[in-house]
Amino acid sequence: MPKANAFYAQSGGVTPVINASAAGVIETAALHKQQIGKVYAGRNGILGALTEDLIDTSKEPRRNIRELINTPSGAFGSCRYKLRSIEENRAEYERLIEVFKAHNIRYFFYNGGGDSADTCLKVSQLSKKLGYPLQAIHVPKTIDNDLPVTDNSPGFGSVAKYVAISTREAALDVASMCSTSTKVFILEVMGRHAGWIAGASGLAAEKSGDAPHIILFPEVPFEQARFIDKVRKTVEKRGHCVIVASEGAQYADGAFLSDSGITDAFGHAQLGGVAPMLANLVQSELGYKNHWAVADYLQRAARHIASKTDVEQAYAVGKAAVEMAIAGKNAVMPVIQRKSGKTYRWSVGEAPLERIANREKAMPKRFISSDGFNITAAARRYFAPLIQGEAYPTYSGGMPRYVTLKCVPVPKKLKTRFDP
Amino acid sequence: MPKANAFYAQSGGVTPVINASAAGVIETAALHKQQIGKVYAGRNGILGALTEDLIDTSKEPRRNIRELINTPSGAFGSCRYKLRSIEENRAEYERLIEVFKAHNIRYFFYNGGGDSADTCLKVSQLSKKLGYPLQAIHVPKTIDNDLPVTDNSPGFGSVAKYVAISTREAALDVASMCSTSTKVFILEVMGRHAGWIAGASGLAAEKSGDAPHIILFPEVPFEQARFIDKVRKTVEKRGHCVIVASEGAQYADGAFLSDSGITDAFGHAQLGGVAPMLANLVQSELGYKNHWAVADYLQRAARHIASKTDVEQAYAVGKAAVEMAIAGKNAVMPVIQRKSGKTYRWSVGEAPLERIANREKAMPKRFISSDGFNITAAARRYFAPLIQGEAYPTYSGGMPRYVTLKCVPVPKKLKTRFDP
Repeated sequence: MPKANAFYAQSGGVTPVINASAAGVIETAALHKQQIGKVYAGRNGILGALTEDLIDTSKEPRRNIRELINTPSGAFGSCRYKLRSIEENRAEYERLIEVFKAHNIRYFFYNGGGDSADTCLKVSQLSKKLGYPLQAIHVPKTIDNDLPVTDNSPGFGSVAKYVAISTREAALDVASMCSTSTKVFILEVMGRHAGWIAGASGLAAEKSGDAPHIILFPEVPFEQARFIDKVRKTVEKRGHCVIVASEGAQYADGAFLSDSGITDAFGHAQLGGVAPMLANLVQSELGYKNHWAVADYLQRAARHIASKTDVEQAYAVGKAAVEMAIAGKNAVMPVIQRKSGKTYRWSVGEAPLERIANREKAMPKRFISSDGFNITAAARRYFAPLIQGEAYPTYSGGMPRYVTLKCVPVPKKLKTRFDP
Repeated sequence: MPKANAFYAQSGGVTPVINASAAGVIETAALHKQQIGKVYAGRNGILGALTEDLIDTSKEPRRNIRELINTPSGAFGSCRYKLRSIEENRAEYERLIEVFKAHNIRYFFYNGGGDSADTCLKVSQLSKKLGYPLQAIHVPKTIDNDLPVTDNSPGFGSVAKYVAISTREAALDVASMCSTSTKVFILEVMGRHAGWIAGASGLAAEKSGDAPHIILFPEVPFEQARFIDKVRKTVEKRGHCVIVASEGAQYADGAFLSDSGITDAFGHAQLGGVAPMLANLVQSELGYKNHWAVADYLQRAARHIASKTDVEQAYAVGKAAVEMAIAGKNAVMPVIQRKSGKTYRWSVGEAPLERIANREKAMPKRFISSDGFNITAAARRYFAPLIQGEAYPTYSGGMPRYVTLKCVPVPKKLKTRFDP
């Protein structure tokens, strides 16, 4: 195999550990200098390739690459940009070939979720459809945990850990206040299409009756009367009630709870939020004093409390992607495989991108309790290993040290510009 | 001094480290068995005294008391209940004496903020006004950092650390997304009357131009046009803008930004939230895609990322309170004193409760930058030492181990009931 350069980019919503995958790719490529020359990172995902905005990772001090393992979010910039098919937008693919050819890029590593797997799959067809020799490997990442085939998605375990810990902590707070003050606490978490993240909050409970008392999943249609009844009974029995709601919680007709329907003076839709909506509902129906929190980016950037297992898996899929490329693979993705047995063990396997792209893995029904308000023992067995271990960043002056890369640009070789 | 028992209780909003003060009180009392018999904790603050609902802390395994140092929120239950004056409600004070006499309680340790200091001051007058010999010592605690005399309030340092870290992490997230997606991120933090917590987010910045780009303080009247202009300029210059808003952000006339003025179908006031209000404003005025988070209880329960300095100070004021009682003091509060010099050093001093109760310490003007949107170097010098050091709880199965006390009740001795 002739020596060539590699392209690496980050795509879609970032995670606390996507940079660990970047480190896995870059450090592993450096171990295979016979096959892989330089790793050029795309600034802002695939856009970096289209605009020839490349970063020379070999100009980065090695310790900076190492520190990526401890740094959340996308160090090279991410993007929300989906390629159309080669048939629909041939110009984009020709541009990619132009850039790749100019910089002798024959390896393409794309680090993202379901949409990005689709982009990666399309790029993998360059070789067959347009005759440019390229191997495209997708590196899995998504806090939503909705990638198929893989047992779990790097990024999810850390968000699960953050949400479970935050739920346990806030539950202690409301439990200590409920005698004379706050009786209901509502935490809104991410997951618009699937309840994986909301479900992970169930790990906060050590025994039956512990918080969270109610979890609202997108998978379970919201029935107001049943919900209110459950809140009332929980407060009557335990003095307080802790609710974790997925941002995707919805009615039977598919309408989101967060669609408030209220518009401001200018006619703009009032941005919702499931948590404040539920808080109003509890207030008006039951009169309980309540507090609510919306974790939003805090949950998916919280590297300070990342799961060690998740960090290790994120690195491992980056490493495996390079090894697959070296082995001549194309249009594949490393996946996490859970081994059977009582002790949690995992290995990295391989899946064709056709089985990954544009498919969402829903949470299985057997993970949701029969009343629809909590998780089952099977769910706990699935979730628990993914949050194992702490992987603290180093601190300086009381603050975590997150690396900012130098991001030295690769000199442009093309005269033509391209506006995606 | 005759040997007698002690009463300890937690009051007002809880913190990540109030239980460390409880450990300081209980463990230090155990070192002075000649003077102090048992420590009885009030269930739900002063209510535990009024209702004779006492917990025998001597029945708690020693390791449980030790683990209080690592456990957030109020292990004995807190309350929001303010005593009126002896003149206004003599019956309440006579009831306290009845309970204290029945259980030979002559030491009163009350762990709270400004309102609780007022309660403690009133209880300290039992001796002089009603002839019951009692020493009342207030143990300072409030995330709001608004207690006077003391350099800082135990509880604040940990919330400051959480907010600064969360801001830095979320800022990395939006920075990596802003090319094609989210350009503005808004984090709402606590502090209805003073901007201490919002100000601490400024520690997220390592150099000029770093996030947070805008901090909204209650102390600085909100001017919409100036705010929008600053957001627009920041996005134009840096690609994104991170905003930290105090829940107490307000207009020049004192109206809170969170008062949306919107009512739901039943005529109930729509619960606001500064962050969603600002998000709507940014959306409608500038059209920037944005995300927002409301930290709420998450920030004040986040023992997992508490400040080591804060934990140590919380323990120290509990310890000092007992030592003051042993020394015969009444109506005083231990305070944190910052020593002069380049390296941060602190000691515990003493202040009379008359100088503490019902006085709020506002953030000094010299801590707020001249444009009103950030903190000054003087503020950084004040805040920085308070978040120093990490004091991780122990973990089991990926989750922090927080102790749940047995809370063995003290048998009631009184026939009479009292309904506060």
